[in-house]
Amino acid sequence: MIVAVIGAGYCSRDIARLAEEVGRLLAQQGATLVCGGLGGVMEAACRGAKSAGGRTIGILPGRSRRDANPFVDIPVVTGMGEARNVIVAGSGQAVIAVSGGYGTLSEIAHALKLGIPVVGLSSWDLSNEGTSHDERIIQARDAADAVQKALLLAVD
Amino acid sequence: MIVAVIGAGYCSRDIARLAEEVGRLLAQQGATLVCGGLGGVMEAACRGAKSAGGRTIGILPGRSRRDANPFVDIPVVTGMGEARNVIVAGSGQAVIAVSGGYGTLSEIAHALKLGIPVVGLSSWDLSNEGTSHDERIIQARDAADAVQKALLLAVD
Amino acid sequence: MIVAVIGAGYCSRDIARLAEEVGRLLAQQGATLVCGGLGGVMEAACRGAKSAGGRTIGILPGRSRRDANPFVDIPVVTGMGEARNVIVAGSGQAVIAVSGGYGTLSEIAHALKLGIPVVGLSSWDLSNEGTSHDERIIQARDAADAVQKALLLAVD
Amino acid sequence: MIVAVIGAGYCSRDIARLAEEVGRLLAQQGATLVCGGLGGVMEAACRGAKSAGGRTIGILPGRSRRDANPFVDIPVVTGMGEARNVIVAGSGQAVIAVSGGYGTLSEIAHALKLGIPVVGLSSWDLSNEGTSHDERIIQARDAADAVQKALLLAVD
Repeated sequence: MIVAVIGAGYCSRDIARLAEEVGRLLAQQGATLVCGGLGGVMEAACRGAKSAGGRTIGILPGRSRRDANPFVDIPVVTGMGEARNVIVAGSGQAVIAVSGGYGTLSEIAHALKLGIPVVGLSSWDLSNEGTSHDERIIQARDAADAVQKALLLAVD
Repeated sequence: MIVAVIGAGYCSRDIARLAEEVGRLLAQQGATLVCGGLGGVMEAACRGAKSAGGRTIGILPGRSRRDANPFVDIPVVTGMGEARNVIVAGSGQAVIAVSGGYGTLSEIAHALKLGIPVVGLSSWDLSNEGTSHDERIIQARDAADAVQKALLLAVD
Repeated sequence: MIVAVIGAGYCSRDIARLAEEVGRLLAQQGATLVCGGLGGVMEAACRGAKSAGGRTIGILPGRSRRDANPFVDIPVVTGMGEARNVIVAGSGQAVIAVSGGYGTLSEIAHALKLGIPVVGLSSWDLSNEGTSHDERIIQARDAADAVQKALLLAVD
Repeated sequence: MIVAVIGAGYCSRDIARLAEEVGRLLAQQGATLVCGGLGGVMEAACRGAKSAGGRTIGILPGRSRRDANPFVDIPVVTGMGEARNVIVAGSGQAVIAVSGGYGTLSEIAHALKLGIPVVGLSSWDLSNEGTSHDERIIQARDAADAVQKALLLAVD
């Protein structure tokens, strides 16, 4: 099982704690974590995963493996900038969004377009948008709830 | 001046009329239209632009120039699927979103991330999202308003 | 008709003269020139095309339209680094390679993989490779020969 | 240590045997194998790596994780077609090319452009090209030689 964790490259201590717990719980459930490989939410989630012996993949926007945070096991070097967001979103069997700005929103949109379930944790909502869309961001109340929902809904 | 027009590959007749008027007005103002090159909103906008003698670029997701709608002057063949959305968003000096689903939302997010102004016409809103973001989708009331706002706010 | 002209971002005066003549002749034949949008061979080819009233598209690797050389009419902003080479190669109905290093070789390889004819001018040869490949780089003796061969062999 | 193994999606039994041995030896040396994730040389190399308890990453061109050969541990889903070749080439600290056509040549070119050493095994040569290039394909005489050279020359 591979789960993508997405969120901003800079974040508050509270958001980092949330992301770290998501990473730790995913690893405890045996899931591999894929993310954008940089700092903030990505680093916190990787740190959590490694603290529980998990496996982490970082899909990097730049051209150097050294851009990866220290908790990335396997840096995938795209050199494609923001276009790597499509790969992060598409490589998870489910996506957990922790807070996040427009980069995160682009990943959410790409995942929903691809039919991959997205679980939101203090993240985008989109439920008040007038336009009707079948797929929705599933809101979670805490890290444990987010991980449980992601593993339950993950596509094959 | 290059303006991106984004929206779904299938759309209602009303939305097509709106997109066509956007394309026509952009061409009348001398702007080049860039879009995803396929049907629906993209085709309607290109048809409008060509009806006023404008120039149209289609950034295609597939590997064949034949995927382009008949109103695309210059098909750019990416073969990159949804990753081409990043290019559509990044190639406009402003973006006009006409209705649209998650593919369109990904383009909106990429544009806002890049600091490119996005004007929405019966499209996503995002203003009710709790998270605070500096850049916003600028809502337009009709095609003329959308084109005027896009040309006014376009980045250099 | 769209023809890609590929080559290095830095080049000698002789190579630049060759590329400029290629651009000029393509424009005189009514072909649109697509290239990587930067300096060297790309800039020389665009300058040649504009000197004859032609149309030029620059598929840029970076995130800013300002990276384009001054003879690019339409900058396409990919932000995808070297991955944009795939787009340059795939967007021409024929490719003319003027000298060039490994970036150019990657574009040649992508074009040949896609079945797009490649004409070489003081560029890679590959004919001495032991491995047998159906598609070959067609060697031209000068700019006029290169343009003639490219227009003759261009795919539909 | 991450090493990319590149080659065609279809190959002869002899080439498959060679690729399988490369994969097995890489795994025995503790290296992680990254490849394009499909059949032929990619599948044979992954099979070899798994036979020795190694770890395998497949950077897939399509949109489905199911495209991966059965010996890929971690499918990275790009949906970017041939543009994923840039990622395969850029994610290895060294590249081993086993035979291969133009897709493989594009990966070789991208790697050499990035300064990543390329070891060739019954693959492209390029040494007879008149143009002078600093970086070269390092020819290996068998799988063991290829793996030894790749691990020795791998960039940090």
